[in-house]
Amino acid sequence: MTLNVALLGAGRIGKVHAKAIEATAGAQLFGVADAMVEAADALAKAYGAKVLSIDEIEASSEVNAVIICTPTDTHSDLIERFARAGKAIFCEKPVDLSVDRVRDCLKVVEETNGVLMLGFNRRFDPHFQAVRAEIDAGRIGDVEMVQIVSRDPGAPPPSYIQSSGGIFRDMTIHDFDMARFLLGEEVETVQASASALVNPEIGKLGDFDSASIILTTASGKHCSISNSRRATYGYDQRIEVLGAKGAVSAENQRAVSIEIATADGYLRPPLHDFFMTRYTEAYAAEIAAFVAAVESGTAPSPNGQDGLKALLLAEAALKSIEEKRVVAVSEI
Amino acid sequence: MTLNVALLGAGRIGKVHAKAIEATAGAQLFGVADAMVEAADALAKAYGAKVLSIDEIEASSEVNAVIICTPTDTHSDLIERFARAGKAIFCEKPVDLSVDRVRDCLKVVEETNGVLMLGFNRRFDPHFQAVRAEIDAGRIGDVEMVQIVSRDPGAPPPSYIQSSGGIFRDMTIHDFDMARFLLGEEVETVQASASALVNPEIGKLGDFDSASIILTTASGKHCSISNSRRATYGYDQRIEVLGAKGAVSAENQRAVSIEIATADGYLRPPLHDFFMTRYTEAYAAEIAAFVAAVESGTAPSPNGQDGLKALLLAEAALKSIEEKRVVAVSEI
Amino acid sequence: MTLNVALLGAGRIGKVHAKAIEATAGAQLFGVADAMVEAADALAKAYGAKVLSIDEIEASSEVNAVIICTPTDTHSDLIERFARAGKAIFCEKPVDLSVDRVRDCLKVVEETNGVLMLGFNRRFDPHFQAVRAEIDAGRIGDVEMVQIVSRDPGAPPPSYIQSSGGIFRDMTIHDFDMARFLLGEEVETVQASASALVNPEIGKLGDFDSASIILTTASGKHCSISNSRRATYGYDQRIEVLGAKGAVSAENQRAVSIEIATADGYLRPPLHDFFMTRYTEAYAAEIAAFVAAVESGTAPSPNGQDGLKALLLAEAALKSIEEKRVVAVSEI
Amino acid sequence: MTLNVALLGAGRIGKVHAKAIEATAGAQLFGVADAMVEAADALAKAYGAKVLSIDEIEASSEVNAVIICTPTDTHSDLIERFARAGKAIFCEKPVDLSVDRVRDCLKVVEETNGVLMLGFNRRFDPHFQAVRAEIDAGRIGDVEMVQIVSRDPGAPPPSYIQSSGGIFRDMTIHDFDMARFLLGEEVETVQASASALVNPEIGKLGDFDSASIILTTASGKHCSISNSRRATYGYDQRIEVLGAKGAVSAENQRAVSIEIATADGYLRPPLHDFFMTRYTEAYAAEIAAFVAAVESGTAPSPNGQDGLKALLLAEAALKSIEEKRVVAVSEI
Repeated sequence: MTLNVALLGAGRIGKVHAKAIEATAGAQLFGVADAMVEAADALAKAYGAKVLSIDEIEASSEVNAVIICTPTDTHSDLIERFARAGKAIFCEKPVDLSVDRVRDCLKVVEETNGVLMLGFNRRFDPHFQAVRAEIDAGRIGDVEMVQIVSRDPGAPPPSYIQSSGGIFRDMTIHDFDMARFLLGEEVETVQASASALVNPEIGKLGDFDSASIILTTASGKHCSISNSRRATYGYDQRIEVLGAKGAVSAENQRAVSIEIATADGYLRPPLHDFFMTRYTEAYAAEIAAFVAAVESGTAPSPNGQDGLKALLLAEAALKSIEEKRVVAVSEI
Repeated sequence: MTLNVALLGAGRIGKVHAKAIEATAGAQLFGVADAMVEAADALAKAYGAKVLSIDEIEASSEVNAVIICTPTDTHSDLIERFARAGKAIFCEKPVDLSVDRVRDCLKVVEETNGVLMLGFNRRFDPHFQAVRAEIDAGRIGDVEMVQIVSRDPGAPPPSYIQSSGGIFRDMTIHDFDMARFLLGEEVETVQASASALVNPEIGKLGDFDSASIILTTASGKHCSISNSRRATYGYDQRIEVLGAKGAVSAENQRAVSIEIATADGYLRPPLHDFFMTRYTEAYAAEIAAFVAAVESGTAPSPNGQDGLKALLLAEAALKSIEEKRVVAVSEI
Repeated sequence: MTLNVALLGAGRIGKVHAKAIEATAGAQLFGVADAMVEAADALAKAYGAKVLSIDEIEASSEVNAVIICTPTDTHSDLIERFARAGKAIFCEKPVDLSVDRVRDCLKVVEETNGVLMLGFNRRFDPHFQAVRAEIDAGRIGDVEMVQIVSRDPGAPPPSYIQSSGGIFRDMTIHDFDMARFLLGEEVETVQASASALVNPEIGKLGDFDSASIILTTASGKHCSISNSRRATYGYDQRIEVLGAKGAVSAENQRAVSIEIATADGYLRPPLHDFFMTRYTEAYAAEIAAFVAAVESGTAPSPNGQDGLKALLLAEAALKSIEEKRVVAVSEI
Repeated sequence: MTLNVALLGAGRIGKVHAKAIEATAGAQLFGVADAMVEAADALAKAYGAKVLSIDEIEASSEVNAVIICTPTDTHSDLIERFARAGKAIFCEKPVDLSVDRVRDCLKVVEETNGVLMLGFNRRFDPHFQAVRAEIDAGRIGDVEMVQIVSRDPGAPPPSYIQSSGGIFRDMTIHDFDMARFLLGEEVETVQASASALVNPEIGKLGDFDSASIILTTASGKHCSISNSRRATYGYDQRIEVLGAKGAVSAENQRAVSIEIATADGYLRPPLHDFFMTRYTEAYAAEIAAFVAAVESGTAPSPNGQDGLKALLLAEAALKSIEEKRVVAVSEI
């Protein structure tokens, strides 16, 4: 059987997922929907798929699964709708920026026995997967402390800030999920500091561009997250896990690994400058994992609950900054 | 216009090229020929292509280009045949193991104004390309000395040795081409030492598994090549170019870049253990370059002369070992 | 003129300083005092110095400077005594474990116009100095975020914990000083989490062996510190500074920089396993800096105020853990 | 007992050895001789030694050992003289530039049961020692191929070339010794290519500044040496040994190990720019080894035969270039 996948949203990330579907054995891009018809049309043509409306996708008995890449504020409605329609759902993070809305939406998914996978793509990065595999293999013993450095090449325009939900819900959300992926234990408390060092305009809008966060678990494990919206040397994404027997880390990635030695010293090129080139393999692997889960009838991971839990950490971080104290996740 | 490409040979490397054709905009896999019909059939089916005989490919007015991945001893005949048929040709190296046969074949290509690209895939490795680009940009000044370390993860079975033409024509041939690519000047002399340290059976068959080679050019530039058929830590492929103003090098590649720190020390995973995973991007890029050359009507590179010149260096290395002296390439 | 230096305390660190004095042009080890006469005798003999009592050192008109390496609880008394005696003082950190006692002691130093340098040796590590120099040279622009990873090879015995003042006053104190050295701006707030993951005995004694700390400054700069008493792979000491134009970091140090490649991967040796081998050069350089300051009549750095400020950060970290909130340094 | 060492030659390298003697327990600098009295005087004063003539050193019953750092053309005469005088001898390489003279000199050493150690300092570099130790520990199995890259930061003035004996006797001599140290088997054949790419003046004087050399042993092991007189990025000294089970390598050394990341990429500082800073530890360790050998009455290593053998390889390399052929060491 071939899984017929419909794509909702033919934008930047939609194109990445369309390519991933086509590259996945056992799945094909069946239809594409987008408010901008030209975008849907171009993508459909490139892969021999149909241009469909959302209604048509919902009604089609041929469509087995949907990939939701539409704007954030449409996610939860679409999830509910397609859960009720019995389609397997892959949705870009977040489910919603509101915790209450996410909870309601996940209730619908649960009631409908819906299949929902959330697009925390970094879990599928081969390097981060290898780190997780070493932990699982017992190579570093019990996990004690996790360090995550996550820095964007440059800050988004202030206009984006407002719709994004702010740095914690938009950017750090990935790191919160990565922390949970690596700690192997739920986070109990959050404390954070943040400031606008890169662009004061971001600060005026009530958001931050530089943040330091500490997470702790019930057994006393820690995770430190360091975020900045500006790393001139590229897309800086490092993880390191200290355990009782050792540590394991994943280095940064660059397009080419050459080195130039001159009188100035030894120079290696900057890192990838864009999350799409940095996480090319991860995007392909997460779609392959979604297809495999749907085809085998197993529950996909990460799921809606993972999305909710990461969002709770973002809310806790915000509360911690506001109240200048350690915040228990259970307070949110 | 879409370039219709026919594939001759549906084996291991044929599959790689089939995938590359499909991934290249402006080209499609039109037909597949293979003495083993099942192999041709499977590959054709996977990409919606036809199973064709070599005669059919030759006769087809729809086929614009062929990719030759058949056994080595068929290469030169096929090149001549398709050059006469007016098809653009991409052929896996080598044209032939005999210098005379190569020369005759290239004469036919010349007389027919044939378009022939030879599969020295490493020139298209992004890391080696970046090294070349730095040289071209003048970053290290005039090239003076090139170092190539090229080691296979393990020695092939002695049975393969006999049909391969020996280490220089089979393995070092890639390094000879890389030397030419990096030196930017023709090689004038060759000297070499070689022995069978990995497997004495290889030595009994008159071949070697460990070799050191020095190439020099008219202006006094040097290139050192170090070959071994066995590197337990993986597929070891390093280049380094020293120039008047500095040096540029390309590091080895591994599947994942993690590091595990324990009481034993800091451990990074072994290298890629197979040339196909090591040179995945290079294989795709060389086919894209072939397609681009054919479509734009420009001469593809590397071409048949590059294949001949690398083979001459292999012959000179063998003569150098036999006669224990520096051999001028012009002697061959 | 040669600076005659008397050493108070002929233990482990006393020996290191004795050697450093002898290696510093313009200074010599004049006398050694230690409650254990054999220790003083051995060290004095090795460098041609005299065994003296503390009273004799105080009274000697020949002694220009003292180096205090006695137990922590004697530091502040000795500093006051030798400040009054007009000797230049180098004292191992800390001045005292009590903030009040430190303040009183520094008042005496101030009233006597005493010359006091404090042994925050890491500021003199050539790698960390090079990091500071790059910042000063404007290479990374304005400093925004500092990351300090500081992990001991193994936890001290619980018996030591009690006299040490705990992890923050004993171990993190170095990182607090390093944070101040790198931030270039005073720390305003501290927040921390800590637990006993390495050895529960340490937890029972009310101390911690694993800690994560965030410091912030008035202008919104951050510093993250990650501490553990156990890193199986050696003495892990890394710093990284992110600025508006880039980042600068200092890597870990090992005794030999070799790499072994086998089928298991690429292995580099563990790090230095002891602070004395890791910071050999720093110990020598700090004594040289002390001698240079005394001889030139300039104020040595780091001084007693630096010692106090680092201690205040330790106190604030403890208070933050106790009260689960962000603590302003001004509260201490 | 304390070994009384007399130093012959108070120049650049003499000062290094003087410091090393003083730092070696069980040895002291007893006397210094130099044709330039001021130089001898300054060095003697710095370490509390006597200024002596060579005759006085020879006659002194108090002097146990001599260190010869005088100009090359005086080495063999001084070795013979002090071997006859019964002093243990440490001599800077080479014994002489003439193979015949070296042979005669070593005959005298043998007849007098002289103790002679030769200053191939690199054997005592901790990184290279660690490589040797890994080989000895069986970590890489049987040695098969050695790669040595050895490049100076800059070419010496042509005036120096003439007295140096040329690149092979002056610079590569260290690499020849290192090859023997690592191969663990005598070299049987040498082949080389060389040119003057850095400075044509060097070529006009009949010498070279860029060289590639292949050494082979009876069992078929290879060693490649790559030399250049100019590496703009510093003093480039790398070794790598491939064995049946893996490989071990020693990386280059720099004064500080920091990295600066900016939009231009990741920059590490250049290497050491001078052999004395690069090999500081090696110089100290070789003198300590000499002192230890003399005190324990064991034969020091490397000795005069090692000096001769490295020189034979230099002669063979020159002959190989002249005659454009592989040269057996037994021909020299």
